[in-house]
Amino acid sequence: MTKGIKIVTIGGGSSYTPELVEGFIKRYDELPIRELWLVDIPEGQEKLNIVGALAKRMVEKAGLPIEVHLTLDRRAALKDADFVTTQFRVGLLDARAKDERIPLKYGVIGQETNGPGGLFKGLRTIPVILEICKDIEELCPDAWLINFTNPAGMVTEAVLRYSNIRKVVGLCNVPIGMRMGIAKALDVDASRVQVDFAGLNHMVYGLNVYLDGVSVLPQVVEAMADPSNAMTMKNISGLSWEPDFLRGLGVIPCGYHRYYYKTSEMLAEELEAAETKGTRAEVVKQVEKELFELYKDPNLAIKPPQLEKRGGAYYSDAACNLINSIYNDKRDIQPVNTRNNGAIASIEDDSAVEVNCVITKEGPKPIAVGDLPVAVRGLVQQIKSFERVAAEAAVTGDYNKALLAMTINPLVPTDKIAKEILDEMLEAHKEYLPQFFQPVEA
Amino acid sequence: MTKGIKIVTIGGGSSYTPELVEGFIKRYDELPIRELWLVDIPEGQEKLNIVGALAKRMVEKAGLPIEVHLTLDRRAALKDADFVTTQFRVGLLDARAKDERIPLKYGVIGQETNGPGGLFKGLRTIPVILEICKDIEELCPDAWLINFTNPAGMVTEAVLRYSNIRKVVGLCNVPIGMRMGIAKALDVDASRVQVDFAGLNHMVYGLNVYLDGVSVLPQVVEAMADPSNAMTMKNISGLSWEPDFLRGLGVIPCGYHRYYYKTSEMLAEELEAAETKGTRAEVVKQVEKELFELYKDPNLAIKPPQLEKRGGAYYSDAACNLINSIYNDKRDIQPVNTRNNGAIASIEDDSAVEVNCVITKEGPKPIAVGDLPVAVRGLVQQIKSFERVAAEAAVTGDYNKALLAMTINPLVPTDKIAKEILDEMLEAHKEYLPQFFQPVEA
Amino acid sequence: MTKGIKIVTIGGGSSYTPELVEGFIKRYDELPIRELWLVDIPEGQEKLNIVGALAKRMVEKAGLPIEVHLTLDRRAALKDADFVTTQFRVGLLDARAKDERIPLKYGVIGQETNGPGGLFKGLRTIPVILEICKDIEELCPDAWLINFTNPAGMVTEAVLRYSNIRKVVGLCNVPIGMRMGIAKALDVDASRVQVDFAGLNHMVYGLNVYLDGVSVLPQVVEAMADPSNAMTMKNISGLSWEPDFLRGLGVIPCGYHRYYYKTSEMLAEELEAAETKGTRAEVVKQVEKELFELYKDPNLAIKPPQLEKRGGAYYSDAACNLINSIYNDKRDIQPVNTRNNGAIASIEDDSAVEVNCVITKEGPKPIAVGDLPVAVRGLVQQIKSFERVAAEAAVTGDYNKALLAMTINPLVPTDKIAKEILDEMLEAHKEYLPQFFQPVEA
Amino acid sequence: MTKGIKIVTIGGGSSYTPELVEGFIKRYDELPIRELWLVDIPEGQEKLNIVGALAKRMVEKAGLPIEVHLTLDRRAALKDADFVTTQFRVGLLDARAKDERIPLKYGVIGQETNGPGGLFKGLRTIPVILEICKDIEELCPDAWLINFTNPAGMVTEAVLRYSNIRKVVGLCNVPIGMRMGIAKALDVDASRVQVDFAGLNHMVYGLNVYLDGVSVLPQVVEAMADPSNAMTMKNISGLSWEPDFLRGLGVIPCGYHRYYYKTSEMLAEELEAAETKGTRAEVVKQVEKELFELYKDPNLAIKPPQLEKRGGAYYSDAACNLINSIYNDKRDIQPVNTRNNGAIASIEDDSAVEVNCVITKEGPKPIAVGDLPVAVRGLVQQIKSFERVAAEAAVTGDYNKALLAMTINPLVPTDKIAKEILDEMLEAHKEYLPQFFQPVEA
Ligand SMILES: [Mn+2]
Ligand SMILES: [Mn+2]
Ligand SMILES: [Mn+2]
Ligand SMILES: [Mn+2]
Repeated sequence: MTKGIKIVTIGGGSSYTPELVEGFIKRYDELPIRELWLVDIPEGQEKLNIVGALAKRMVEKAGLPIEVHLTLDRRAALKDADFVTTQFRVGLLDARAKDERIPLKYGVIGQETNGPGGLFKGLRTIPVILEICKDIEELCPDAWLINFTNPAGMVTEAVLRYSNIRKVVGLCNVPIGMRMGIAKALDVDASRVQVDFAGLNHMVYGLNVYLDGVSVLPQVVEAMADPSNAMTMKNISGLSWEPDFLRGLGVIPCGYHRYYYKTSEMLAEELEAAETKGTRAEVVKQVEKELFELYKDPNLAIKPPQLEKRGGAYYSDAACNLINSIYNDKRDIQPVNTRNNGAIASIEDDSAVEVNCVITKEGPKPIAVGDLPVAVRGLVQQIKSFERVAAEAAVTGDYNKALLAMTINPLVPTDKIAKEILDEMLEAHKEYLPQFFQPVEA
Repeated sequence: MTKGIKIVTIGGGSSYTPELVEGFIKRYDELPIRELWLVDIPEGQEKLNIVGALAKRMVEKAGLPIEVHLTLDRRAALKDADFVTTQFRVGLLDARAKDERIPLKYGVIGQETNGPGGLFKGLRTIPVILEICKDIEELCPDAWLINFTNPAGMVTEAVLRYSNIRKVVGLCNVPIGMRMGIAKALDVDASRVQVDFAGLNHMVYGLNVYLDGVSVLPQVVEAMADPSNAMTMKNISGLSWEPDFLRGLGVIPCGYHRYYYKTSEMLAEELEAAETKGTRAEVVKQVEKELFELYKDPNLAIKPPQLEKRGGAYYSDAACNLINSIYNDKRDIQPVNTRNNGAIASIEDDSAVEVNCVITKEGPKPIAVGDLPVAVRGLVQQIKSFERVAAEAAVTGDYNKALLAMTINPLVPTDKIAKEILDEMLEAHKEYLPQFFQPVEA
Repeated sequence: MTKGIKIVTIGGGSSYTPELVEGFIKRYDELPIRELWLVDIPEGQEKLNIVGALAKRMVEKAGLPIEVHLTLDRRAALKDADFVTTQFRVGLLDARAKDERIPLKYGVIGQETNGPGGLFKGLRTIPVILEICKDIEELCPDAWLINFTNPAGMVTEAVLRYSNIRKVVGLCNVPIGMRMGIAKALDVDASRVQVDFAGLNHMVYGLNVYLDGVSVLPQVVEAMADPSNAMTMKNISGLSWEPDFLRGLGVIPCGYHRYYYKTSEMLAEELEAAETKGTRAEVVKQVEKELFELYKDPNLAIKPPQLEKRGGAYYSDAACNLINSIYNDKRDIQPVNTRNNGAIASIEDDSAVEVNCVITKEGPKPIAVGDLPVAVRGLVQQIKSFERVAAEAAVTGDYNKALLAMTINPLVPTDKIAKEILDEMLEAHKEYLPQFFQPVEA
Repeated sequence: MTKGIKIVTIGGGSSYTPELVEGFIKRYDELPIRELWLVDIPEGQEKLNIVGALAKRMVEKAGLPIEVHLTLDRRAALKDADFVTTQFRVGLLDARAKDERIPLKYGVIGQETNGPGGLFKGLRTIPVILEICKDIEELCPDAWLINFTNPAGMVTEAVLRYSNIRKVVGLCNVPIGMRMGIAKALDVDASRVQVDFAGLNHMVYGLNVYLDGVSVLPQVVEAMADPSNAMTMKNISGLSWEPDFLRGLGVIPCGYHRYYYKTSEMLAEELEAAETKGTRAEVVKQVEKELFELYKDPNLAIKPPQLEKRGGAYYSDAACNLINSIYNDKRDIQPVNTRNNGAIASIEDDSAVEVNCVITKEGPKPIAVGDLPVAVRGLVQQIKSFERVAAEAAVTGDYNKALLAMTINPLVPTDKIAKEILDEMLEAHKEYLPQFFQPVEA
């Protein structure tokens, strides 16, 4: 890293890239990036060109000596990288739309991370990420792999179990969003609020909340129990919680917990949306289309404010803060997906968890939380079971394991429907799932 | 125990009692019972009289010197008991019918053990069993408490956590039924078949199956995957499994797993039954009525064969074998509910599990299984979470904890419906739930 | 096993063999042995011939159709074996004498199992046992490996970690001796006494003792605290315990615990013995010489009573009972060395422990004991640390790991003396330690 | 804490106090102390007066508005304290001299923390600290208890197990000394060096070492293996390690590990010192006498440089940095003694460990390290066993448990000598051990 940092962004043609570029520009003093390589696949060439041109204009306007490279040659880009960020989407938004629509036909929420949709996103993504890991091992073995690609928990699990890469972090903006939401609910500046996060990706809980170092957990529970106050996120319904359920729970759920604790209502919302405005993927596709129109404007040299509608609030902050803290050994606390190492008692040491970590130059070091409250241990374990079986299916192409993963998912009510959904989705995503359709070599 | 064994059966007026008496008579040579005390409450006086008279006739016909005592005075009966068996039903079958019908109104399966119905059965039963524990502590501190009352897992958990009684075993006929079913599927004598049971009550798995000491697990999985062969129980639907799901699972589920892995189909069946032949409680009520008519016959001095329709196959065997092995230090292997003690890795040492144990004079000693397969760990943990929160609610009368237990139950799809079911059931069972309606003393 | 059992005894020329043969003859009705193969190495040919001839006479006198084969061809013997027992001694008693004498020169007890002597016995033995495991895998993959060779705990650990054999049991006569000693101290028949054994080989504790199913632990502690009563073994000093130490300990130590809780006195005894009657190996060598003279007598056709001086009391019983219970699926409880599987909480699941097991046709199934008392957890963990590092050194030939094992052994007071002992012993045993003297291939 | 911080130092008459005062003065900008209460007992009145007067001169010279109070009334001092630091010594240095000399008579190292001396220091100290805890609970329930009193691990364990105080941290300067020593060995500035500390007090290991974020563990092991380079501490012998032992160990031991890995040499050194310059306590007593002469000088208004001979290097830094990070929510990493909470796998969650923590306003949060290397797990567990049994003996006054603690200590070779040492030390310290000489009320 003598002459500045080399960052490689796989899926560089994503609409999120300007977020990231803005974050890098803002932090240039601390984080002197020399080269930013945006990598994509042939199908993404056009978007890559548009976003890449915008990125170059942004850097130029900022007057910074960051070289922006656009390429379809992943291996060339990876050579000697310091950080590799992954934000690609196998099959693009069309695949996600299928992940959402097919389960709905069977009365089941698609849920693109910890649901049936997430299973298929994992089946498509994991083989690709493991290929990237092999390239990293060969071309930039000291690099950190910062994965944004969902399902981030399952992907991190797969990297830990099925690759040799240990310098991997899975990233999500849910915890930072929760902290911001709590600060807003308490009507205080977010810098005064600390949250003990622990759980899994999109299944993370705030086990305690501190204002200026003093626990305010009961007040936050009460604030969340107030329907007018419910913290939410752009891409998740704002359905309010049963106040007494929250009081019984005694810890802070994340937005995605609605899929599990409010399954009926979420299903109803998604069915209605599918009939009216379209599924989330379909909405996002339209938003992206508009974004790319904006990005094309040769006079645009900043991140357009419309990007915020995309749902990635704090995304750039989460990513850039993580890279910054690793690079500068900042030793601050950030919630990320990493090897458990005993931090959560009832999860295996070698599984991925999402938990507060100290971010050091040596990577994230998880803070031990003992065990999760008994009431949430079951659901967390169930998603971990799902993630592990799904990762195994992704690597082996074993149909029975894929059906097992689908059936044990808490959103799927029966083995029979699980099989119907599985079969239809396997067919729909066939081109991205060679492991299920080609003989695997011994 | 110098002059023979004293057994106290609480809920002695149950229709199951003749099973038990038959089992005791059959084993008299090994198990010399001196006194059998059948205890019931005033509302059960009539049944107690009928069953008690039959029991006396059975003993007389067998020519054995067993004294059969009928009483409403529990404390008098408990004095110096060697074994206390509990098979009572707070609120009788009418309460169970409500446990089944009320959730169905909300599209939710009642499930009288690990479902919403089981929650209420636990809320009614646990305070009574803890009172019995106090009596045992005082009146027969060396006695073994053999609990048949459902939800047997939750009740055992509550006794372990909230009483001083350690000589407690929870009993169920599901594992013995699975073993018999497997033997039948393999078309071999049951004595040649051994099963490594582990899990929770009504959530137990066969982790391995041996025929003459050699694992035949894959063959058993295939046999179960054959729809024409599916093992079943009188009181659980015979819905067949998706073959590939079973193959992926790789271990043997119990009949009750259908509630979780085939929720939609089970719900449909129960809804239909409720509209036609009545819920299980209502059917049983009719069966019991007929049974008691038979029991009244002064010429009847054996267990009538019609009792088998009741659903308690192997019940007497399970109970009498357990008592026999404790009394005679038989050191055979039986699957029972006991303190985990590390036998299943991901369950706390001090929680109840259902697992193969060596049955000794000192009680059951659980066989260590390491950990459950990753795919089933989640569901098992979730039911354990449910049992623990439910037991806490039963003891404290905390409304929020009761709602929490209801919401985290895997059969309940949302906190809102959980609250509606909870509120209606609390009202319906009000007379048996003083802890929720009277101020609890500090 | 259609036509009777084939047993292969590696180290068949051992003086213990008549014990084993006697045990097999006594149990022939249950344990129909067809072939007994006694295997030895060229250096053991003479002893093998003597013992083998005696074994044949014993079988003949008993009138049983057991074929006794003597061979130096291990692989020929192993073909299709049902049970393989190992009782060989690499380097014979001369090597053991060095294991004992060399440490004594440095003021350190040799201790041929869990001490510096045991380290070297392990370094010599483990590579050979792993070779045998490879042969078993190829020639009789369904056979059970019953290891008597010391250090039995370390050897079992090595087989579990460094071979593919899972059907392995390590065996020791210490627990059965403790049970007999306790029965004698209580002046009752041993059949009425049960002991909850748990720990490691030669580091096993009786966590509880039952007489007719009732705990008599405090009485046994008091009996052991009585110096006139101290249970002991032929091959271990009868030094008595400090009564208040035993009372504080609250559980029953084994004879070998004297090496750790009475190190000074044991060292003094061993130093004196070395100067006078010779070390244990030297005494045994003389005993064996006399035994082999007896064995040669063509009129001898039974186990000579003098064999009992050899120190292997209950040895034959332990071995034959184990084989019998596996063969006949007896499902009785025996303390053996097996994979922990969670039975003892603070030991890794995949490490070897010595613990009560149910012995089934599928092998030993360990009974979960939760955790060891806090006071003994440390010493047990320390011996496990020693066993694991020693096994690693044996497999890799890594000098630094051998020195580490020697230094962390609780009998060795300092790294400096550890190195001196290690260096002298490596040189003394050079011919049996090729892994330390030849380049290991990558 | 509105008007500045109130700190109460129990054992305020200690010669270390000027260190602490200097540390507070240096950090006043961040750590605005309003009141510093130095508390001592009547026997310490004279020292308290001398040290207190010096402290006042130091504050005055610094021109800071810190009120320094001297008192013998602990409860008056504690009222509304923010931080309570404990650095008292029950029985003063004379007691420590006995802790050192009595075991030496029996050929055993005294070792005032994890050895027989530490046992007695614990027996004297724990009842007092538990009294202080009761006062804190009543008078300043929000205060942090920062314990410097040795044996700091055992004391922290006792507070966690036997008091209601949870805001407790045990502090030691060993880890900071190791880090400084490593930096010196690497010839780099200490700020560039980070160490992953984990273990127990005075039994802590550096599991990894990073220079600028890159692991340099092998280089540090080599540097330590160089005898000319060996890191050491004022109060521990500089005996060098066997290089190959260190290479096998593969992690960094602390200075106190010499007592366990180099017992013979340490014993020889201590025996010689006892005969010549006196034991450590006797040397320190002389040093202290000289220090107090210096402290009396009315012109002295700074910490005299001679204090450094006392052996408390980095002591003030460790203490003030901890208080500063708690007060200011600095969230930096410091190695302290705290509740394990799963951070070290083989230690119970509710035991004290010494491990890297993030220091927040909510207290220290331990970083999960998974498990310790197998080779060190045993010794660490053994000291934890010792600490726990010793703490139990301190609280109950149970003679047998005290003997058990003494016997299982790795420095004590036999139960017989353990009893002799115990009896002589109990008698010698009789006046400070009422729990062993007065009937304890039920
Ligand atoms: Mn996310
Ligand atoms: Mn049942
Ligand atoms: Mn042995
Ligand atoms: Mn210290």
